[in-house]
Amino acid sequence: MRQTPQLQKHGFHPPVMEIEIPTIADVRLAADRIRPFIHRTPILTSRTLDEHVGAELFFKCESFQKVGAFKARGACNAVFMLDEATAKRGVITHSSGNHAQALAYAARLRGIPCSIVMPRNAPTVKQKAVAEYGAVITLCEPTLQSRLETMERIISNTGAHAIPPYDDARVIAGQGTAALEMIEDLPALDVVMAPVGGGGLMSGTAIVTRAMSPSAQVIGAEPEIADDARRSLESGVRQPPPITTTIADGLRTALGDITFATLKAMNVRIVTSSEASIVEATYRMMERLKIVIEPSAAVTLGALLEDPQLVRGKRVGIIVCGGNLDVRSLLKF
Amino acid sequence: MRQTPQLQKHGFHPPVMEIEIPTIADVRLAADRIRPFIHRTPILTSRTLDEHVGAELFFKCESFQKVGAFKARGACNAVFMLDEATAKRGVITHSSGNHAQALAYAARLRGIPCSIVMPRNAPTVKQKAVAEYGAVITLCEPTLQSRLETMERIISNTGAHAIPPYDDARVIAGQGTAALEMIEDLPALDVVMAPVGGGGLMSGTAIVTRAMSPSAQVIGAEPEIADDARRSLESGVRQPPPITTTIADGLRTALGDITFATLKAMNVRIVTSSEASIVEATYRMMERLKIVIEPSAAVTLGALLEDPQLVRGKRVGIIVCGGNLDVRSLLKF
Repeated sequence: MRQTPQLQKHGFHPPVMEIEIPTIADVRLAADRIRPFIHRTPILTSRTLDEHVGAELFFKCESFQKVGAFKARGACNAVFMLDEATAKRGVITHSSGNHAQALAYAARLRGIPCSIVMPRNAPTVKQKAVAEYGAVITLCEPTLQSRLETMERIISNTGAHAIPPYDDARVIAGQGTAALEMIEDLPALDVVMAPVGGGGLMSGTAIVTRAMSPSAQVIGAEPEIADDARRSLESGVRQPPPITTTIADGLRTALGDITFATLKAMNVRIVTSSEASIVEATYRMMERLKIVIEPSAAVTLGALLEDPQLVRGKRVGIIVCGGNLDVRSLLKF
Repeated sequence: MRQTPQLQKHGFHPPVMEIEIPTIADVRLAADRIRPFIHRTPILTSRTLDEHVGAELFFKCESFQKVGAFKARGACNAVFMLDEATAKRGVITHSSGNHAQALAYAARLRGIPCSIVMPRNAPTVKQKAVAEYGAVITLCEPTLQSRLETMERIISNTGAHAIPPYDDARVIAGQGTAALEMIEDLPALDVVMAPVGGGGLMSGTAIVTRAMSPSAQVIGAEPEIADDARRSLESGVRQPPPITTTIADGLRTALGDITFATLKAMNVRIVTSSEASIVEATYRMMERLKIVIEPSAAVTLGALLEDPQLVRGKRVGIIVCGGNLDVRSLLKF
């Protein structure tokens, strides 16, 4: 990802030398900071799913989180960490996904302006969702260059502060609060799993698990056809974003500098799931847990269906990242 | 519904003169009896759905109940009320829906035999679900006569005890425990709503609401094209089962003798929803509450979307009857 100095100055993509991995203390501070604004989400279980895998599975359902995804945690933490002077100039990001909604939600809570740069071809339903939270949408061409240039122009005009979707210590610390709650509720887990896209959720999850449950295994799951995290960690060199149409559309992004460094430092193991297993796992979670999830949230169970030996006989905490499924398009009566 | 004397003797469809409406005391006893075997289900809310209707809506989610529907409550109550001698001869019903699974679940818990008579054309997935609970399935021709004859034959051979899906005081008392929990959690409701099919859930809900929250309105909702309960209550004469293909397939049955008498005695108001509103409400509940529901569970919100004045400004408790949606057939990625 090409970065302009202007964007770096505004913290959108800090240069490598500045990498500092957030700590469990950062996550605990984040938890206190965002507590009034987020749900403590429920943990669901299913005896049938346990039988399918031969393990005890605990699903931490961020699908019930504000804006329907864990992203509300990181966005709230980042927004509420801003000093007054910075905050009142507003916040900005480019995204057409859950982070855009989450940032709009957090900004509205703090009562500050929020700009979202979206590609012209972003689905109307997503534009509407962001607009409903009161954010100002600026449409751009559907290229990364146009996104960045548009964002830089708005920053020059307004002094808005950029809050990136995952490669940001404040955001990572916020995402870690999901695992913090889960391990508080379930102290004796043998394995903790989360999906890996840009790596924000996985980084926060790994930081918390290593600190609170040091003997637990930490496993990230990604689509087999978007396995840049696995290849990055195996090769020791961050791999480019995959060009992929995986059904797990939240996991198409590549790791960032901070998230890559975090996953390396925390010794996270990566497993993968085929597209067919992601779909099968989506069905099973909807059938058995009776929750609406997006396919990205099923990549963990998908990987376990393919290789149950990974966790056989163990107590496994799984973070279900979100529930923003387009039911109107997909569910036909 | 034609009844043979043999079936009447076994309590499947008691003659009119024996009608005795269960009381709140029966429901409280049922609650104690079934407590170990059922979930106390969560109550979910959505600010957006509240805005759509202009009221405070509280959704009591029986979709998270054992077997995915409130039916587990009534079946458990009936099965655990049986004396030892009767119980050990087993239980029987004819059903291809949630009651079959619920009875199989309850019988397995008590460790007694369970026979389910199902039409030959019942979907394999439903047969499988019942078989997984250990019930013995006997297939019959897809006519009511064949169902009843098959059931009578099995009863003659085994002495099994028939537990009907809704027109049974034990079953009604069990279904009432959902409203009991809801009103314990939310004492200040202005309106209590439930869907109406055979009327078991609605009867139990009305009995509980009249006793515990006497000033609350009690409203049943049914599909406009299956409005036999409305016509029955308006005319004072029980109307025949509708011939309908409403998408709310759990609500295609007509009231029974006991449920009709109960709804009359409890002065239940009936409202209806068009098919389009049922579908729209199903989408909105899945989008906003992030839960999987069957369309039958959306007929209440469907009616409110059509006529928000019914509940404007009020606190409304809504029982969400079940979550057994065939996601594999309906949800295409």
